[in-house]
Amino acid sequence: MQYQKLINRIHEIQDLRKATRVLTWDREVNMARGGNADRTHQITTLQRLSHTLYTSDEMGALIEAAASELNGVSYQSSEASLVRFLRRDYARARRLPAEFVSKVSDVNNDATLAWKQAREDDEFSLFRPWLEQIVELEQEKAELFGYKHEPYDALLEIHEPGTSTAEVRTLFDKTKAELRPLYEAVLARKDWVDDRFLRQPYDIDKQKFFARYLAEEVGYDFNRGHLATAVHPFSTSLSRNDVRITTRYSPDYLCPSMFATLHEAGHAIYVQNVHPRLTRTPLAKETSAALDESQSRLFENFVGRSKGFWRAHLPRLQALFPSQLGNVSAEQFFKAVNKVQQNFIRVEADELTYNLHIILRFEIEQSLLNGTLRASDLPLAWNEKMNELLGLLPPTDREGCLQDIHWTLVGFGYFPTYALGNLYAAQFFRAIKEQIPQIVTELEEGNTDSLTIWLRENVHQYGRMFTPAEIIQQATGAPISQEAFVRYSTAKFSEVYGL
Amino acid sequence: MQYQKLINRIHEIQDLRKATRVLTWDREVNMARGGNADRTHQITTLQRLSHTLYTSDEMGALIEAAASELNGVSYQSSEASLVRFLRRDYARARRLPAEFVSKVSDVNNDATLAWKQAREDDEFSLFRPWLEQIVELEQEKAELFGYKHEPYDALLEIHEPGTSTAEVRTLFDKTKAELRPLYEAVLARKDWVDDRFLRQPYDIDKQKFFARYLAEEVGYDFNRGHLATAVHPFSTSLSRNDVRITTRYSPDYLCPSMFATLHEAGHAIYVQNVHPRLTRTPLAKETSAALDESQSRLFENFVGRSKGFWRAHLPRLQALFPSQLGNVSAEQFFKAVNKVQQNFIRVEADELTYNLHIILRFEIEQSLLNGTLRASDLPLAWNEKMNELLGLLPPTDREGCLQDIHWTLVGFGYFPTYALGNLYAAQFFRAIKEQIPQIVTELEEGNTDSLTIWLRENVHQYGRMFTPAEIIQQATGAPISQEAFVRYSTAKFSEVYGL
Repeated sequence: MQYQKLINRIHEIQDLRKATRVLTWDREVNMARGGNADRTHQITTLQRLSHTLYTSDEMGALIEAAASELNGVSYQSSEASLVRFLRRDYARARRLPAEFVSKVSDVNNDATLAWKQAREDDEFSLFRPWLEQIVELEQEKAELFGYKHEPYDALLEIHEPGTSTAEVRTLFDKTKAELRPLYEAVLARKDWVDDRFLRQPYDIDKQKFFARYLAEEVGYDFNRGHLATAVHPFSTSLSRNDVRITTRYSPDYLCPSMFATLHEAGHAIYVQNVHPRLTRTPLAKETSAALDESQSRLFENFVGRSKGFWRAHLPRLQALFPSQLGNVSAEQFFKAVNKVQQNFIRVEADELTYNLHIILRFEIEQSLLNGTLRASDLPLAWNEKMNELLGLLPPTDREGCLQDIHWTLVGFGYFPTYALGNLYAAQFFRAIKEQIPQIVTELEEGNTDSLTIWLRENVHQYGRMFTPAEIIQQATGAPISQEAFVRYSTAKFSEVYGL
Repeated sequence: MQYQKLINRIHEIQDLRKATRVLTWDREVNMARGGNADRTHQITTLQRLSHTLYTSDEMGALIEAAASELNGVSYQSSEASLVRFLRRDYARARRLPAEFVSKVSDVNNDATLAWKQAREDDEFSLFRPWLEQIVELEQEKAELFGYKHEPYDALLEIHEPGTSTAEVRTLFDKTKAELRPLYEAVLARKDWVDDRFLRQPYDIDKQKFFARYLAEEVGYDFNRGHLATAVHPFSTSLSRNDVRITTRYSPDYLCPSMFATLHEAGHAIYVQNVHPRLTRTPLAKETSAALDESQSRLFENFVGRSKGFWRAHLPRLQALFPSQLGNVSAEQFFKAVNKVQQNFIRVEADELTYNLHIILRFEIEQSLLNGTLRASDLPLAWNEKMNELLGLLPPTDREGCLQDIHWTLVGFGYFPTYALGNLYAAQFFRAIKEQIPQIVTELEEGNTDSLTIWLRENVHQYGRMFTPAEIIQQATGAPISQEAFVRYSTAKFSEVYGL
């Protein structure tokens, strides 16, 4: 009875939040620019209404009344999980005063415009004053939320509940150190892999057809989704039963459309497979940002950049592009899509160097937050670290510290989840191969059923019922470690580069 | 100060209402079927929230406080107009009890499913029980709203404020009588017009290109809009600055895409040209359903089916379709797109017979409402009237009384606004030609600037600030009459049919 009251209110709030997502999705995909100002009002109004409902005293009372009623109900149940989640989330939401939230939203809007201009003009000084404000807001946010050991813990907690900065630091330091020799060996054979056949004219309508084919093949459900085009691909859940993906098409490079599609399909399959019982609750969502990224990476790289996958699907692609790919073997294709690029840009980085781009940002965010790095010194610090980690010196700030939008969103603590996602993906994938030995053969036959079922049963169905640590422990029998990722990378890139 | 409080609340409610529209638009255009149930929840939640806010006692107090504050402010001002509108609209919204609204919504959902099935199976009896309930709800609604002379007045008032059933009846009776001889003369020359060249294969991508071209040419602003595809074309305003249109494409008939585009563009141009001061208020909307329809009809028929229009634009169309249209003259094209079809289906009716389809529905709705026609006798009554008005006997109910969705929406009183729209359009168009004699030449040169400016200044900018009667009187110097429409039709169809 009390629980029912709670769930009715939660449904209402969740409907409002999802409606906001529809408005955002539509803005990115369909809306003409003239609609911007009015749409911002609509989004702000919906956000304010859902925030007001969610942070009301009444909501606190509803949660506590339901908690008393459920006393003794199994920890594993969706009811207990929801109340557990809400208690934590509600308390956190109440810690941010309305003025702070609105300040963040204002700075975010203005900083985004400034960042775009700074990037266009390659003029960091245009963005510097906003970065200073952003750092101050991040510091304030950390204090408002509170933390055990260091301020960065508070920001990490937003995206990766239960994970400490110290823990991430250790994982990243090990990853960095253990992959160093591999990275250097690969660099010594820079031109070993030929990927020129990927860089030719490819008809966009045929790419669209193949993107849809790929998404369907890996288990994305088009009856509960939609594939559109966007400059910066993303996926978004407008409900558990309407999870959309976007991709982009390059007329003369085959990779972006294929791998953005697989990546976004990975995100989407996660939410599509959350247990139906969690529909219209905040639990119908990925456990955490890193677990979410683990699924996109798993489909993009562990599946989509494997040799077996192209044994299964290259023939279909060749039928579409006989003149470009007629003479290419699955082996050559596999190597080409895994070519290590020394790239300044994170989103264009290969699987091996991607984590290094993240580690750079993780370290810089901490220095900015604890005041050891001033905003004005960011370009220098960025370039030094880039050189140290990747042996690269960005020729412009546009290709350096101005490349990402994340900081303008007042989003410190998010970057590390990308690299954590890779580590999670590797650990899941190893567990799957151990638990289902025939999976390798199945994937080579283009059959992803066992994979999807395993992921649904061990990860997807739970949504946010448990913490990331609980999920990984339960699914793989061990806490998160860099080990599976290092082994996987070593094996893969040794094969690609004949090491 | 009081007015500012009111307007803040109105903005909030209006944002919610427009967000609901985004959700609906997206459902029709993008959403996969699997999203249906969740989307319905989202839409219902948003509607409930905006309805609750709007019908609260607090809203009544806000309106009255603002009214006192504005005492003495000009009737013409947007502030006074808003308060005037809200007083009327709020009182009306409060007259419908929540249980009644929810009953209507339930019947609407179930009746729509039943209607679809009945239509598919061509089995009226499947729909009959729902029609009985619908009629009862319409009767109840009329009593709840109240009326001066007859119950139908109450339903008409919803869509056409200030217009009485008696007035519409007189207009329609005159239209019917005065157009009768013309209709008979045309029927006697049935095969006079050859439109076979319109019914050939036409490439859809080229049709899409031309639809966009047409919309742009008549003044639809793509910076504040979007053209998509839908089975049943519609336009929708997601804000004054984001007014979308949809059209449909037939692979072997050129008319649907062109004229649906012009029709929907006409609706959209209206809202795009509402005065910016009215943004985010319920006044940023067409004055009434009939005035709205007058604009779509004006662009579709008075402009889009005129000879001058095709003198200007046929060359562009011929360049796209040289083999289909290379030998066709503007004169032939003009005649072909005005060919009178003896059609059972309202939405496929030509300009001359369209009003007769409406008059049939107007008369039947009244008989159902006042109980002189039983739901079970509808098919018979429909066919008799069809025969009387158009000399046609529908072979099936699917092509007869089951063809429209309107009744399942519990929407008695809406149909007449379609025909009223035609009368308004004719009266506006005559006034424009009188006030701007060079307009005919301009339109022949493909120049719609004067037309758009006149419509913006005399109709569009006001949104819902005034009643339909005030708008037509002010713009044309006379109350609404059938006269302009009868003259226009007589001149046009005499030319097309060489009478």
